[in-house]
Amino acid sequence: MSPPAPFTSAAVADTLERIRARTPLVHNITNIVVANSTANALLAIGASPAMVEAEDEVAQLVPLAAALVVNVGTLTVPQAAAIARATHAARLSGTPWILDPVAVGVLDFRSRVALDCLADAPRAIRGNASEIMALAHLRGAGGDAPPPGRGVDSLSGAAEALPAARSLARATGACVAVSGATDHITDGPRVATVANGHPMMTRVTGLGCTATAIAGACLAVGDDAMAACAHAMVLIGLAGELAARIAPGPGSLQVAILDMLYRLDRQAVMEHARIAPLEP
Amino acid sequence: MSPPAPFTSAAVADTLERIRARTPLVHNITNIVVANSTANALLAIGASPAMVEAEDEVAQLVPLAAALVVNVGTLTVPQAAAIARATHAARLSGTPWILDPVAVGVLDFRSRVALDCLADAPRAIRGNASEIMALAHLRGAGGDAPPPGRGVDSLSGAAEALPAARSLARATGACVAVSGATDHITDGPRVATVANGHPMMTRVTGLGCTATAIAGACLAVGDDAMAACAHAMVLIGLAGELAARIAPGPGSLQVAILDMLYRLDRQAVMEHARIAPLEP
Amino acid sequence: MSPPAPFTSAAVADTLERIRARTPLVHNITNIVVANSTANALLAIGASPAMVEAEDEVAQLVPLAAALVVNVGTLTVPQAAAIARATHAARLSGTPWILDPVAVGVLDFRSRVALDCLADAPRAIRGNASEIMALAHLRGAGGDAPPPGRGVDSLSGAAEALPAARSLARATGACVAVSGATDHITDGPRVATVANGHPMMTRVTGLGCTATAIAGACLAVGDDAMAACAHAMVLIGLAGELAARIAPGPGSLQVAILDMLYRLDRQAVMEHARIAPLEP
Repeated sequence: MSPPAPFTSAAVADTLERIRARTPLVHNITNIVVANSTANALLAIGASPAMVEAEDEVAQLVPLAAALVVNVGTLTVPQAAAIARATHAARLSGTPWILDPVAVGVLDFRSRVALDCLADAPRAIRGNASEIMALAHLRGAGGDAPPPGRGVDSLSGAAEALPAARSLARATGACVAVSGATDHITDGPRVATVANGHPMMTRVTGLGCTATAIAGACLAVGDDAMAACAHAMVLIGLAGELAARIAPGPGSLQVAILDMLYRLDRQAVMEHARIAPLEP
Repeated sequence: MSPPAPFTSAAVADTLERIRARTPLVHNITNIVVANSTANALLAIGASPAMVEAEDEVAQLVPLAAALVVNVGTLTVPQAAAIARATHAARLSGTPWILDPVAVGVLDFRSRVALDCLADAPRAIRGNASEIMALAHLRGAGGDAPPPGRGVDSLSGAAEALPAARSLARATGACVAVSGATDHITDGPRVATVANGHPMMTRVTGLGCTATAIAGACLAVGDDAMAACAHAMVLIGLAGELAARIAPGPGSLQVAILDMLYRLDRQAVMEHARIAPLEP
Repeated sequence: MSPPAPFTSAAVADTLERIRARTPLVHNITNIVVANSTANALLAIGASPAMVEAEDEVAQLVPLAAALVVNVGTLTVPQAAAIARATHAARLSGTPWILDPVAVGVLDFRSRVALDCLADAPRAIRGNASEIMALAHLRGAGGDAPPPGRGVDSLSGAAEALPAARSLARATGACVAVSGATDHITDGPRVATVANGHPMMTRVTGLGCTATAIAGACLAVGDDAMAACAHAMVLIGLAGELAARIAPGPGSLQVAILDMLYRLDRQAVMEHARIAPLEP
């Protein structure tokens, strides 16, 4: 039987089952706000997280990892050095890696660090519309500078950032995922949309970072980076919308999302995934 | 209609509604224990948190922020440098800022850092009795050295620290909030008390830090720093006591507090706030 | 009445009640993933946590603390310096301390740091089988190098690591606790086993770190380090298995474990503890 088309519920379910079967080691260099919730999300979905950021250690761990996740949310000077070592090691070892450019475009230091590590060929980039537009602009990949974001909030919608995302994908070779009410994922030629999720998710810190980490787990078990990113957006969005059915507020939602990531199965994915290729 | 008197339920409800309407950007330089729970509390109540501490970045973010929260709970040498840059930038840009002097008086390094940044004119200071008494003593603002605290626990009650708090407020120009079973808030001449809260809250880490962060959000939307601090003590205390009605233990309490911060409304505040000016 | 034998339910209950009566100050130098959950676990069981890692501050806090917990999970260069200062101070002041050698044997930097601090006479060491086998091998305490672990996962069972654990205990004078489906605890001559716990606990990040922190609290109130470690394994394991009865997934489990640590009492311990000396 041939595999399902990449942007279908069946393909998402296959990815989920591969994560569960392989428990890929996902190395995270991430921020102090989400280190706990990201590790828990990766464990809940069936991956094996490692949070390691000493400069000497990242070079040693990256080649052992099935994927690397780089998140600049609470960047420091030593962490920037560790990121440079890690992404360089990933390029050499062929470990797929994904960048989360938190608040890039607002703060110069992290903008420079994010731009620099693009030279190490990330397999994917996930951010909100403001972040992706800013990174595309910094990379010289067309488009105007976006309206400046405000911290980690985006002032633009995901669809608005699609031209910038396509340009950034073409310039870097990475798949680019733009989160929003409807997520847009592109590798340049192709575009897919994911419409899972719930508005209350914006009141829980770091669910974007969690989406990026889950995309790392999906990259670890699949060769099509764009499919991996789209599947990750379904998995976190679906966990969020199922959790929102029972959560009276964002505290409960954060907890229930971990429960749902753990309990998600083929049937739930087949029933609720809203993923589709976007006709050009 | 004239605005309600500052230390009334109606004034607290107005502050809450202003936060929800404006979603102020609250910049936090905080500790690794509470980064997640503080960000979630700010999101739950309707603010927009940013946790940023690279020295170069704080100078850039502070002028964009509606308030700055400085917490020395897990202070490091680079963080101390970032704090100095941030509070200096806050003074220059007029961004209101609040200090949480965690364990000041117990540990010399953080005591020195906290004392130094008082020169940058914090709008408010929130701590427990031991911390406030120690900081007042360090500042030369009268009073004996307090009985040494033990880590983050206070060995004294809030009322006992009121003279030190008044002196510290007069010496620095900041409003000073002392947390306890009954919180005492003063700007020197005025004193208000808040009697919301629940004893189980002392078994959840970082709820004092959360109170400080929420005070940052209140400072961002109000001109009267003392009213802002008092309103914040009501909001977190009220969330805690409503949460304690349904929480069988401190794990559930931490989650339910976030839900309650999200669900608090004018009616709940009008019904349950216990805030009053203290007659001299 | 003479005290109960060390590896009995009654002795565990006594330790729990001593923690509640004394609220020992437990100083943690730990990782960014578990700082919040560890502090909350210590508060829930009745101890008083302090997370402090500035190099100058650790030297000042260690002599005031009733126990020190050292965890190398997200080790950095400055943290390694702070650990060296802290363990040295603990040796001088007689503060009992415990090492959690997270991922030692996989990453050279932390392996060296963990090995170095053994010179400061830890009272206890807690890890999984891979970590304990690796540390014993590094210490030259007999045994072959273990099959390399993979991040924080152990590829071996606790019983398999018992010979290495005994050698490590004899070489260092520390009690060594090996976590697994059945925990094995040894001081060299003696061995005890603890069979509390639940498989879903492996899907929550940092429960091993929490076990180590609770062992710190137990060390703070008891003279028999091996009994302290065994009692801690019962307390966290029992909280986990009671929590698993009501938790539909790992998010809920993390929350319910804190509730259960808070609610554990003599009766629950007497009824459910599964602790026993292992006959030689």
